Amino acid sequence: MKAVVFNGPYTVGVQEVDDPRIESPLDAIVSITTANICGSDLHPYEGRADMPAGSVLGHENMGIVTEVGSAVNRVKVGDRVSVPFNIGCGTCRNCEEGFTSACLTANPEGTPGAGYGYPKMGPYRGGQAEQLRVPWADFNLLLLPRGTDFENDFTMLSDVFPTGYHGTELAHVAPGRSVVIFGAGAVGLMAAHSAAIRGASQVFVVDKEKDRLHLASELGATPIDFSQESVEDVIMDATRGLGADCGIEAVGYQAHDASGEEHPEMVLDELVGVVRATGSIGVIGVYVPEDPASDEAPDGRVQFNWGAAWEKGLTIGTGQCPVKRYNRYLRDLIIEGVATPSMIVSHELPLEEAPTAYEKFDRREEGWTKVLLHPAS
Amino acid sequence: MKAVVFNGPYTVGVQEVDDPRIESPLDAIVSITTANICGSDLHPYEGRADMPAGSVLGHENMGIVTEVGSAVNRVKVGDRVSVPFNIGCGTCRNCEEGFTSACLTANPEGTPGAGYGYPKMGPYRGGQAEQLRVPWADFNLLLLPRGTDFENDFTMLSDVFPTGYHGTELAHVAPGRSVVIFGAGAVGLMAAHSAAIRGASQVFVVDKEKDRLHLASELGATPIDFSQESVEDVIMDATRGLGADCGIEAVGYQAHDASGEEHPEMVLDELVGVVRATGSIGVIGVYVPEDPASDEAPDGRVQFNWGAAWEKGLTIGTGQCPVKRYNRYLRDLIIEGVATPSMIVSHELPLEEAPTAYEKFDRREEGWTKVLLHPAS
Amino acid sequence: MKAVVFNGPYTVGVQEVDDPRIESPLDAIVSITTANICGSDLHPYEGRADMPAGSVLGHENMGIVTEVGSAVNRVKVGDRVSVPFNIGCGTCRNCEEGFTSACLTANPEGTPGAGYGYPKMGPYRGGQAEQLRVPWADFNLLLLPRGTDFENDFTMLSDVFPTGYHGTELAHVAPGRSVVIFGAGAVGLMAAHSAAIRGASQVFVVDKEKDRLHLASELGATPIDFSQESVEDVIMDATRGLGADCGIEAVGYQAHDASGEEHPEMVLDELVGVVRATGSIGVIGVYVPEDPASDEAPDGRVQFNWGAAWEKGLTIGTGQCPVKRYNRYLRDLIIEGVATPSMIVSHELPLEEAPTAYEKFDRREEGWTKVLLHPAS
Amino acid sequence: MKAVVFNGPYTVGVQEVDDPRIESPLDAIVSITTANICGSDLHPYEGRADMPAGSVLGHENMGIVTEVGSAVNRVKVGDRVSVPFNIGCGTCRNCEEGFTSACLTANPEGTPGAGYGYPKMGPYRGGQAEQLRVPWADFNLLLLPRGTDFENDFTMLSDVFPTGYHGTELAHVAPGRSVVIFGAGAVGLMAAHSAAIRGASQVFVVDKEKDRLHLASELGATPIDFSQESVEDVIMDATRGLGADCGIEAVGYQAHDASGEEHPEMVLDELVGVVRATGSIGVIGVYVPEDPASDEAPDGRVQFNWGAAWEKGLTIGTGQCPVKRYNRYLRDLIIEGVATPSMIVSHELPLEEAPTAYEKFDRREEGWTKVLLHPAS
Repeated sequence: MKAVVFNGPYTVGVQEVDDPRIESPLDAIVSITTANICGSDLHPYEGRADMPAGSVLGHENMGIVTEVGSAVNRVKVGDRVSVPFNIGCGTCRNCEEGFTSACLTANPEGTPGAGYGYPKMGPYRGGQAEQLRVPWADFNLLLLPRGTDFENDFTMLSDVFPTGYHGTELAHVAPGRSVVIFGAGAVGLMAAHSAAIRGASQVFVVDKEKDRLHLASELGATPIDFSQESVEDVIMDATRGLGADCGIEAVGYQAHDASGEEHPEMVLDELVGVVRATGSIGVIGVYVPEDPASDEAPDGRVQFNWGAAWEKGLTIGTGQCPVKRYNRYLRDLIIEGVATPSMIVSHELPLEEAPTAYEKFDRREEGWTKVLLHPAS
Repeated sequence: MKAVVFNGPYTVGVQEVDDPRIESPLDAIVSITTANICGSDLHPYEGRADMPAGSVLGHENMGIVTEVGSAVNRVKVGDRVSVPFNIGCGTCRNCEEGFTSACLTANPEGTPGAGYGYPKMGPYRGGQAEQLRVPWADFNLLLLPRGTDFENDFTMLSDVFPTGYHGTELAHVAPGRSVVIFGAGAVGLMAAHSAAIRGASQVFVVDKEKDRLHLASELGATPIDFSQESVEDVIMDATRGLGADCGIEAVGYQAHDASGEEHPEMVLDELVGVVRATGSIGVIGVYVPEDPASDEAPDGRVQFNWGAAWEKGLTIGTGQCPVKRYNRYLRDLIIEGVATPSMIVSHELPLEEAPTAYEKFDRREEGWTKVLLHPAS
Repeated sequence: MKAVVFNGPYTVGVQEVDDPRIESPLDAIVSITTANICGSDLHPYEGRADMPAGSVLGHENMGIVTEVGSAVNRVKVGDRVSVPFNIGCGTCRNCEEGFTSACLTANPEGTPGAGYGYPKMGPYRGGQAEQLRVPWADFNLLLLPRGTDFENDFTMLSDVFPTGYHGTELAHVAPGRSVVIFGAGAVGLMAAHSAAIRGASQVFVVDKEKDRLHLASELGATPIDFSQESVEDVIMDATRGLGADCGIEAVGYQAHDASGEEHPEMVLDELVGVVRATGSIGVIGVYVPEDPASDEAPDGRVQFNWGAAWEKGLTIGTGQCPVKRYNRYLRDLIIEGVATPSMIVSHELPLEEAPTAYEKFDRREEGWTKVLLHPAS
Repeated sequence: MKAVVFNGPYTVGVQEVDDPRIESPLDAIVSITTANICGSDLHPYEGRADMPAGSVLGHENMGIVTEVGSAVNRVKVGDRVSVPFNIGCGTCRNCEEGFTSACLTANPEGTPGAGYGYPKMGPYRGGQAEQLRVPWADFNLLLLPRGTDFENDFTMLSDVFPTGYHGTELAHVAPGRSVVIFGAGAVGLMAAHSAAIRGASQVFVVDKEKDRLHLASELGATPIDFSQESVEDVIMDATRGLGADCGIEAVGYQAHDASGEEHPEMVLDELVGVVRATGSIGVIGVYVPEDPASDEAPDGRVQFNWGAAWEKGLTIGTGQCPVKRYNRYLRDLIIEGVATPSMIVSHELPLEEAPTAYEKFDRREEGWTKVLLHPAS
């Protein structure tokens, strides 16, 4: 089959690889109808994640089940499914308690948590390919209505929509609360959409890219261009000087100032500044324990305004989203027309155009917000 | 009346000051039967908190109501009461929602949160004195059974017992969970007591002072002397390599290694290391946004192992304890014999001996765990 | 001043009564700009609540503060305020924990919970009058933006909007869940509005009055006319045979079938039938421990399908809404344009027309959904 | 193999039946070391549950794994395991969300929820036998330390200890709260043990059997003999007239008065009377939607004091315990010596004596609190 293969920093190709096959009675094979490129695919793409050459990329996958192992009962051949980016065994303590993001079984490297097409997340090929092997298929796959309706909405269920939603959960967004979100990439925008769905009274989205801020305002949020105005002034004005109830970090360790210089602590500091005393911060932007490419925090040690956070009594939630905790409900919101995450899609391309897409997405070219690949069409 | 007055770094005296009086119809005057010296009294004592000379110290107070304002109805003259260290107005949003630690009204300095005898917590005199004025008395005072029973237990209700308990709340301690607590001072010990009361399966307390570790083991916890053994080894052995479910920071920004050198990030790093993926950390040790005495973190910016915390998906709760959220229930646990916080008391002294007590407590002389002053006896 | 006075069953008049005055330093006097008639005003109106003749009716009140007691600090003369229907002292255990609906102090009759203009809720006159005395004013009053904007929305904050919202809280409505609401009166409609704001995927409203069902559909809910179709069929079809996640009872003990005959257990039985196993039911419709007018349940003992509820493992929440827990957030949702509870208003009348309004509202004349009186205009 | 077989009302025998075998790649076979007789085994025993003759009884099982299907990976032959009484598939929505008590897959009868050896809970043989087939073994089985330590404690993990604990969860037992438990059978006693572990300040247990009340007091609870004293008087005296914070129903539909007459509403009425306004009730005693043997409630419709419950604003949780939600933590509490559920064991018998044990247990002979059978020893 064809797949998007990482051949080294800034070099991906669409190449022939072996077809996946059932390796365990609990596996399923999914024919991929849509696979998205994610901002975190850029970490290996840029050579910042130790990905071995020859790896197949892609962890935002959906498609049609074409084969199932002998112990798979719930999922049937022909089912249309969303594949959560995290792989859970379904029977370890963490999976049982809803933390499929920290499965203790699936990742032989020992760190809790496994996934597709990502370094250190176990030996699972990515899904930017014609087919994908899904382990523990009955546990991991989310059933979707058959057919092709809502394809571009449902494809957000594998990662960015639940991840944005997870940010609102970690930040304790609730009806009537005010929310400030840093980062208007796909995840930040999905956090804004989620915050509105959860009944936030005010949602602010901070970025400096005009196209993304425009999408934020289309989602009903108030955009703040941090290169043009003071975030703190806007938030304090809007909240009688108290600060926002909830803050969401949707940027990660590559946070950079208006000049492009990286400051891993920059967004954390701003959040501590604009979230109210007793408030909560959800950090869904990725931070890493090691980053060879960073001068400031090669060991993942970030120096931020901790003393002020303590004085305010903030609560901070972190980490990867356990997709299964939310995806069923988000699917139903799509079906009922309450959620339309597809509105952030900027490009739909055949698999062959993945190399160009990676290049442009990595350069953050204007208008390249979210790229969908359609391998099986 | 007599009171313990701060006259400059390392200099306190027992001096005559004006008697307090009813200033608002909502005030009460309390004759102090017991006032404790707290580890955080040492911040101003050491000149690290900008306390003006002439201030009366003390925020851990209890006593008998001797006078009430005209709008005080619930509390009566003669009532025995515990005075929470935080002062709440009872009608701002934060007080209403149980965050009396972040009252928006009581502190004219503008920062949320007010208290007795502490710099930047508003114009409220401390209670290491014969009498204390309590604002919003109906809201703030906790009624105790009249008489003198349980005096040394009840005196822990103003701060250290609820603060330790708050640590277990922030760390999401629940029945059957394992808990590691850094710091065996009064607050850490109260966290250990609280964790046991809440049904933790295993409680570890880390320190290097033998007398304090001994108290930890008397409370049923497993002591770990970090100057003698590897905390990580002990915790990983006890938890099948997964780490503790819950971590509590009861040390604060003056964390220091076995040699006495301060490292404000030291305990946070250790907690990130020994708490399991998906776990929670409660930080009740005090961190400050400014510390002129510190070379490492004068601006409260602490560089800790944030990338690893994110990778583990930890939740971190911080800040001062809202005493009223817990003190009623902790009082009832004392009355029913379930809790006995008095077991950490090392000294009971008359008010006059406060200067000596401060000196010895500040030097962490062996056996000086918790000092009670009895001004009104 | 003028006030709506209950003179006996089915007899109310607009009469002169004494002006209210400050009785405690914690009181405020409010000039009533809007007072709504509530479905529960009909219980005394119909002689089913032992209301003494001469009582002033009305517990849904808002207005302008005209006078404050000497210990009132937060609220100022000239402030525009919403008056929650429950009266809390602010310092008892229940008030502290957010249960102002069960204040232990305010009601001298001994039962927890006090309110305005309602039998057994304490000696507090109602607000269908030119003025109202509000006890513990700093604690009870919610500040609104000055002026007249959103008057018809804000007037819903005293009772029906928070009460409807409380139903969604008791029923554990959350994003993506399905909700079935019995009763399309003001409270049921506000529950539907709240469920949508909280991100429910599907909201069903059951009634038999066409005008009310029409309002439900305008709020985005799916109306079900139980006199025309089987509620169970509709819900099971829409939920793959599982039942709704959440159920809300917004009818109360006067539930009656299509023929008008009362069956206090009818709606409870239906909810047990259509809510899924593991689901939750919030009961905001009023049930009473004594109802002399009822043959079926004079002692409030209702025989419903309890065995089936247990088998399904349902959770059931009951009781009056503690308005203060929600009104601040609902106010902000109104200000930001997310909530528009005024859409259920059918009539705005001067105080003088109260008798006619009661008569028509009691007869459930078509189109009489929600009546606002404007005493001070 | 030998098994306890139901041959008709009041008639059980120890008979040869076919050995169980692996039927699905996800099955395991467990050699039963201990199987307890449960109070709910008496429902079929007495002919009140439509059990077909020839059924093998028993849902409280533990033992050693002797064989596993080809897709079982986590559990190994030789592992010592506890078998939760509910059977979950691990991949349906309810299992995923922790409601293994309402698995949507395992019970072909259509009702959510499946179990061993119980009518209408699916085609699963009971475990009062030498061996037991366990479906979805990786998901359902709880690993125990190998060997024989704590056998009589661990055997409580299959049902009564988690079920008692579930009662405390449904009743929102928390540190410092007061709890009243009706029923001092095994489940009620386990609820009392759980309440103490969770830090309740006061625990009351109501029954009329002296041996059981004695066990309650050995667990640290205050026994109340309802045939001798007024429950309401005791509770009100102990709670300053407010009532208990939490109530637990551990009796079920066969509740009977001191004379032995059944009143299914009796305990519910008492709970509504003695639980405080705003309090919570957890109902773990079994109620059924049909009971042919009952005159009062053949259709499961129970007439209790609902109006009073509503006026108090009570929350009521019901239903079977989802054992897996708790058993891991309760196991760890046993291992660490915090919990000792074995203290309720009255008899340990070989399988052959099951008929006698059923007879005496059903007659509630004094001292027959909890019977363990040891088939494999």
